[in-house]
Amino acid sequence: MRVSIIMGSISDREIADAIVKQLKEFGIDYDAKVISAHRAHAHLEEYVKEAEKDTAVFISIAGKAAHLGGVIAALTTRPVIGVPCKSSTLGGLEALLSTVEMPSGVPVATVAINGGKNAAILACEIMAISDENLSKKLKDFRAKMEEEIKNTEYIYEG
Amino acid sequence: MRVSIIMGSISDREIADAIVKQLKEFGIDYDAKVISAHRAHAHLEEYVKEAEKDTAVFISIAGKAAHLGGVIAALTTRPVIGVPCKSSTLGGLEALLSTVEMPSGVPVATVAINGGKNAAILACEIMAISDENLSKKLKDFRAKMEEEIKNTEYIYEG
Amino acid sequence: MRVSIIMGSISDREIADAIVKQLKEFGIDYDAKVISAHRAHAHLEEYVKEAEKDTAVFISIAGKAAHLGGVIAALTTRPVIGVPCKSSTLGGLEALLSTVEMPSGVPVATVAINGGKNAAILACEIMAISDENLSKKLKDFRAKMEEEIKNTEYIYEG
Amino acid sequence: MRVSIIMGSISDREIADAIVKQLKEFGIDYDAKVISAHRAHAHLEEYVKEAEKDTAVFISIAGKAAHLGGVIAALTTRPVIGVPCKSSTLGGLEALLSTVEMPSGVPVATVAINGGKNAAILACEIMAISDENLSKKLKDFRAKMEEEIKNTEYIYEG
Amino acid sequence: MRVSIIMGSISDREIADAIVKQLKEFGIDYDAKVISAHRAHAHLEEYVKEAEKDTAVFISIAGKAAHLGGVIAALTTRPVIGVPCKSSTLGGLEALLSTVEMPSGVPVATVAINGGKNAAILACEIMAISDENLSKKLKDFRAKMEEEIKNTEYIYEG
Amino acid sequence: MRVSIIMGSISDREIADAIVKQLKEFGIDYDAKVISAHRAHAHLEEYVKEAEKDTAVFISIAGKAAHLGGVIAALTTRPVIGVPCKSSTLGGLEALLSTVEMPSGVPVATVAINGGKNAAILACEIMAISDENLSKKLKDFRAKMEEEIKNTEYIYEG
Amino acid sequence: MRVSIIMGSISDREIADAIVKQLKEFGIDYDAKVISAHRAHAHLEEYVKEAEKDTAVFISIAGKAAHLGGVIAALTTRPVIGVPCKSSTLGGLEALLSTVEMPSGVPVATVAINGGKNAAILACEIMAISDENLSKKLKDFRAKMEEEIKNTEYIYEG
Amino acid sequence: MRVSIIMGSISDREIADAIVKQLKEFGIDYDAKVISAHRAHAHLEEYVKEAEKDTAVFISIAGKAAHLGGVIAALTTRPVIGVPCKSSTLGGLEALLSTVEMPSGVPVATVAINGGKNAAILACEIMAISDENLSKKLKDFRAKMEEEIKNTEYIYEG
Repeated sequence: MRVSIIMGSISDREIADAIVKQLKEFGIDYDAKVISAHRAHAHLEEYVKEAEKDTAVFISIAGKAAHLGGVIAALTTRPVIGVPCKSSTLGGLEALLSTVEMPSGVPVATVAINGGKNAAILACEIMAISDENLSKKLKDFRAKMEEEIKNTEYIYEG
Repeated sequence: MRVSIIMGSISDREIADAIVKQLKEFGIDYDAKVISAHRAHAHLEEYVKEAEKDTAVFISIAGKAAHLGGVIAALTTRPVIGVPCKSSTLGGLEALLSTVEMPSGVPVATVAINGGKNAAILACEIMAISDENLSKKLKDFRAKMEEEIKNTEYIYEG
Repeated sequence: MRVSIIMGSISDREIADAIVKQLKEFGIDYDAKVISAHRAHAHLEEYVKEAEKDTAVFISIAGKAAHLGGVIAALTTRPVIGVPCKSSTLGGLEALLSTVEMPSGVPVATVAINGGKNAAILACEIMAISDENLSKKLKDFRAKMEEEIKNTEYIYEG
Repeated sequence: MRVSIIMGSISDREIADAIVKQLKEFGIDYDAKVISAHRAHAHLEEYVKEAEKDTAVFISIAGKAAHLGGVIAALTTRPVIGVPCKSSTLGGLEALLSTVEMPSGVPVATVAINGGKNAAILACEIMAISDENLSKKLKDFRAKMEEEIKNTEYIYEG
Repeated sequence: MRVSIIMGSISDREIADAIVKQLKEFGIDYDAKVISAHRAHAHLEEYVKEAEKDTAVFISIAGKAAHLGGVIAALTTRPVIGVPCKSSTLGGLEALLSTVEMPSGVPVATVAINGGKNAAILACEIMAISDENLSKKLKDFRAKMEEEIKNTEYIYEG
Repeated sequence: MRVSIIMGSISDREIADAIVKQLKEFGIDYDAKVISAHRAHAHLEEYVKEAEKDTAVFISIAGKAAHLGGVIAALTTRPVIGVPCKSSTLGGLEALLSTVEMPSGVPVATVAINGGKNAAILACEIMAISDENLSKKLKDFRAKMEEEIKNTEYIYEG
Repeated sequence: MRVSIIMGSISDREIADAIVKQLKEFGIDYDAKVISAHRAHAHLEEYVKEAEKDTAVFISIAGKAAHLGGVIAALTTRPVIGVPCKSSTLGGLEALLSTVEMPSGVPVATVAINGGKNAAILACEIMAISDENLSKKLKDFRAKMEEEIKNTEYIYEG
Repeated sequence: MRVSIIMGSISDREIADAIVKQLKEFGIDYDAKVISAHRAHAHLEEYVKEAEKDTAVFISIAGKAAHLGGVIAALTTRPVIGVPCKSSTLGGLEALLSTVEMPSGVPVATVAINGGKNAAILACEIMAISDENLSKKLKDFRAKMEEEIKNTEYIYEG
């Protein structure tokens, strides 16, 4: 089972990179595509229906009126994680609201604006429920993160 | 040619009523359906594809993460007017941003939050470009509106 | 494996009810507790550590400066779904931002303001990845939802 | 019939350029003027009244307290498309609200902040209702857009 | 010289009442009319041009996309005070931004949302610059207000 | 040493009640007055200067353009706690920003919108630094609060 | 009679420059000082009380929790124009709300964020009520502005 | 007794620098650590419990979903001052709301976005209640600040 990443535009590729980097660190398979919900609607439908059987979790990356996560969620019952993208006008608040405020019946698991890395970690947390090995990797990741913080020293150099 | 109205939920029926009332006043044909972009995606697609040939203008009515207008716009090249609905949490700002901030290539003509009447008038303005009779009705409507305002008197009754 | 629901205050019980109702419909075990991240911090820690081994997914319900989801996520590597609660001042925007804008490394899967039902569905989608039976229930649920919409008729009664 | 573009200030010329570029691609006639609703009110009135007979659609481009679209709409029954401009203070939210929240009776068809290209496409969608040739161009445009997305490949180069 | 009050809709009459009440207390002449900037544009123009010679200060009362203050300001060089009205959707923020964010060259002196009383006081402050008698009344008004506060006692009755 | 509470208007008395109730529970002396920063500026100055010598902490309660906390802070070097009040227009966001966004040099310790009880607790926390007895009371208060939460049981009664 | 300009910080000097430039063009006397409402409260009081007799209009320039306009207004019954300053965090919305949302009894005539030039024009409009010569200058200014716009030509250079 | 500063990430070090600089000017002892509430939760708990006995005031520095202040406040009854950090997406509004909107019982004394210097001054104001010497330093600091403003001259150099 893999994670399927769909970005609304190639301009969101840095966020896709952050997701892929993290998935690779955890040894998780992935597929990543550029498919707009609005500009390539039929293609999106086809892809989601096809990808569904090998996919544990979908991740959408979209900005502005970010409908991508919602449309994917309408096409599958796999969990869909939505990453709202920052914009130069409203800062990403518009994408956040468009992603998270889904109607009853069809949720999108929303993470922070530009939160690609966290989308990947969340996908792994989800897959780790039935994967002891991945679960252990997540615990090690946390422990390492805590260790790094413990070793970060602040010295005032006014 | 008619106007096709799609509401995301039957709970938006008051806004649909305002639209229909106004269209009837201008003598415009319409069809009105409840079809959620998320909960009945395949059905929406089918309806839009089928309705397109008789439809001059689509009007979507949707609240919260209001993807309905955008998804209809992805399925047709007819003009799509989007009415964002008021919510009890964010007041409709979320629906407004989800409706209006569409990506390049696929516009949704957005009107005010709960602006059903204006959606109907805009649809008529659009259809009136090639319909002299309707155009005249719109001018009469405006003249009447102006007349009403002229006849509205404010008297202080402190 | 069960879903563990933690609400920050008993005043959020309606949202907990919506979650439990939906979980019961899908036949999912649950535990539900009132534990504030701020007013009962030690108790929260204890509960999460203890609950973790039987829990597939945690759901937090919290309003205002909604830290509950984030603190649970800091204590476990199980997926945490956060439900921000509506407030009478800022409408729930403050709880939404407090829940979703988590720092890199510790995600909270955020759903809509007051989105209890969707939190339950998301939890089931997550658990269904390794549970064919639950997966089928989710598909049936969707089909039924689509059917209901198809059967919803709008008639103008101006 | 042409599209008449009015920008509130020459500083908005990049958005006008995006509109004109798109209209030219579709072979649509246009006129474009700089006329402020506030600083040249009489001139605006004169222009709109004069332009109306040859104009199918007006497009306004305005920022901040963006009254331009509303004032044009008050002067004509032709459809008016409003493009709110981004600002360095409130990001364009002020212009968006000023453009879209029109009172009952006088709609402005609002597109995204800085959405010049979409304003042009919407104008063409409107004119295409009674112009089979333009309608075909819009369908080709969409097909090409979908094709481009299908050909956009994302390769991780972490 | 009088104060000329223009409200966009008779539904704003409570705010007009607050203005008139305060003007009467200060013995200031006024005229008050309902004239929408969008639904009665020609009529507005006529009224402002006519009223200008007897008017020291204009006060506009308008909600939503509140263009009224800006349009009056475009038609006169008399000071224009704008009162943004509360709405049930965005609380009046939209009217505030539409009123206050005027472009360079044409200011609107904006007061608080629903701030009718303050609009009247501001108008009087403006007229008092060249009216010693009115100036004295304003000082007495302030002194009385301060006295009232000094006489307001808070007693805890837990 | 006491806590001095100043409310901008008697309409904020419920918040003052919440503060006084909590201070009484901790056995802390207080004085509470209604003094507007704008309508009784000289009186405010006089009061703060006079109260300062017996006052450990000031608490301001103010809504809308809530300048009260900032003006008190300008008049004393005692800590000033600011309670922003909810409004029916912008929900209290305006009062929150007016209270918290103080310039460098003159802080106001801001608590939540309508957070009267927390203002009292914060004042006690501040006074407890040099008061062992009060410090113990605060710890007991916390323990009791935690106990109450532990004893709060949620039972689904779908 | 002159215009008295008070800026909260020397960092706001660009806005003061815009005001002074415009006042000079209209031949209006002015005085301009840096006096913080919070960091130099006694000094502010002294200045306002002293300046009042020669001052027709006060203009405040302040950012963040912009209390300056409100405090000046509390100290005088002359009209006070408030210019909220842009910030790098909330864009100036905080200063706008702090300036405009004044309580009943003490108005501040608020102009746009960073709207220095408009503050000057508004001050002149106010003074022109009893100054025919200045009134004529304002009309000429408007006519020139309109002329400039008429002479501004947009040419597409795609 | 010292001030204990905890920053959520080393990237917030500039704000910590501003705090330390100000504390040093007042001769106040401090300890400063990098400890994330989410990524090093156990470590944070340990540190706060240990630091509490020597600490008069805690200061938290955190951005985005800024839970740090709230979690520290849950672990101690010492006063906790929260500094919300600016972000590149929502400007710091998210951190402000996450810090200030604490539930009843557990306050965080919030200062302005990026208000490190003011956090230090507030901590000193709090400690000065029982420290005459520090109290005098604060008064001198204020006097000096007022002096500096009096000596700041604005000269128009249009």
